[in-house]
Amino acid sequence: MWGCHKYEVKPLSSQVVVLGGEVLDSPGIIRKALTEEKRVSTKTSAADLVTETDHLVEDLIISELRERFPSHRFIAEEAAASGAKCVLTHNPTWIIDPIDGTCNFVHRFPTVAVSIGFAVRQELEFGVIYHCTEERLYTGRRGRGAFCNGQRLRVSGETDLSKALVLTEIGPKRDPATLKLFLSNMERLLHAKAHGVRVIGSSTLALCHLASGAADAYYQFGLHCWDLAAATVIIREAGGIVIDTSGGPLDLMACRVVAASTREMAMLIAQALQTINYGRDDEK
Amino acid sequence: MWGCHKYEVKPLSSQVVVLGGEVLDSPGIIRKALTEEKRVSTKTSAADLVTETDHLVEDLIISELRERFPSHRFIAEEAAASGAKCVLTHNPTWIIDPIDGTCNFVHRFPTVAVSIGFAVRQELEFGVIYHCTEERLYTGRRGRGAFCNGQRLRVSGETDLSKALVLTEIGPKRDPATLKLFLSNMERLLHAKAHGVRVIGSSTLALCHLASGAADAYYQFGLHCWDLAAATVIIREAGGIVIDTSGGPLDLMACRVVAASTREMAMLIAQALQTINYGRDDEK
Repeated sequence: MWGCHKYEVKPLSSQVVVLGGEVLDSPGIIRKALTEEKRVSTKTSAADLVTETDHLVEDLIISELRERFPSHRFIAEEAAASGAKCVLTHNPTWIIDPIDGTCNFVHRFPTVAVSIGFAVRQELEFGVIYHCTEERLYTGRRGRGAFCNGQRLRVSGETDLSKALVLTEIGPKRDPATLKLFLSNMERLLHAKAHGVRVIGSSTLALCHLASGAADAYYQFGLHCWDLAAATVIIREAGGIVIDTSGGPLDLMACRVVAASTREMAMLIAQALQTINYGRDDEK
Repeated sequence: MWGCHKYEVKPLSSQVVVLGGEVLDSPGIIRKALTEEKRVSTKTSAADLVTETDHLVEDLIISELRERFPSHRFIAEEAAASGAKCVLTHNPTWIIDPIDGTCNFVHRFPTVAVSIGFAVRQELEFGVIYHCTEERLYTGRRGRGAFCNGQRLRVSGETDLSKALVLTEIGPKRDPATLKLFLSNMERLLHAKAHGVRVIGSSTLALCHLASGAADAYYQFGLHCWDLAAATVIIREAGGIVIDTSGGPLDLMACRVVAASTREMAMLIAQALQTINYGRDDEK
């Protein structure tokens, strides 16, 4: 159990969030839906997918939280896709990705997560990420460490890019110019002799691998604040670094990130990358 | 339990292969080694890694099998790296990858498998692949179906590349010309509007995802017969197609493959690819 201000959030292994003793079993809904036929719609591109389950889980999480915390604000993926503004104020704010890895989910590829971050005064306070099929619950709270199913997480501490396993994601834009830049960035890291590059289809779970020491760096252009909020707390509490691709401080709304086990590694990655412009979450 | 000719191979959920009631617990060795520091050597390139555990597990598997089947032949990854010839004769032959995903294994990235295939008269008879951390045992026997932990596997049946999740691996060669071709192939598939491309660091587990319907196609240049032997039986028994990247029949020794849920999909992938020359396993 861990408290945050006056609310309690108890992560358990089989539920993402338990509030006031009641169960919010969104992973159960996702696991069941994984085996069923899905009606799939597209958002910003043919590769940017959404299903009824994304909406169902998001509505469930928000309605449960809103009932308990009526003054809190919410930033959530599908609400944003429907036109809700993504503005992080000083108010307590829940930042929610109901299904991270929707393309995986559509294909029943078992790398799918629920991600819930929480910020107060624009500071990320805690994050919870649940790997829906492997029943791994990642949690992090500012100043209190990061854990996976109760086991403390530590980044690898690797500083040498030529010994690094690097994770990335393709991003939703698939026009030829964006693809060229995406592939050119991958080429630069492979030329720098990174051991390997992995693309698993879930930003949040890739970032959890980094937090657990199973990878040494992650970068992406085209992800969103709901992909980053929970994972950023978890990585920082595991000893890792989360920065902007420019090498400067993380900007949660800038749709881009470099995360790494060490500052040296993060800077090496940031210096190798060409920028892909995805705009900002708070200007859409 | 399933027999093959006069030998019995009983796949259980916690062991790769049980022979004559005795346990060959190579996944247990790998899971234990995953948590420990490793001495890593390189083979054909800085990205082509081997550890003491690869050798230990391979020696264990071969010595147990040789004791029971003294006339059988063996083709195995680390023996081949040490100069043993990879020639598939008509004799009963075990084709073994002790750790598929060695780079993952070195980084404790939890996508690592043991793969054992078996051929008689140059025909693949059965295959067993064990996902060491998720305790998933994939099995396939010619004419008898493919299973994961006892559950029947079926490919997705997808024929449309623009609805496909495609898997690939980078391959061990990292010279600029090879990398250009690798990235150009990925670009061609993304231009063809594949939903996504995933790179998980284990050919055999990627092929198992295809067999289970969680992905629609897989292609790679630079893999070996020990990556393909077991998986080929599993995919075919799940209703999928395994062919050469030229579009012709699979050549187990040609270091290249296209596998897909349907022949239409396999041909679309094969037609999109530029060849990367990795030589042949039986000419090294």
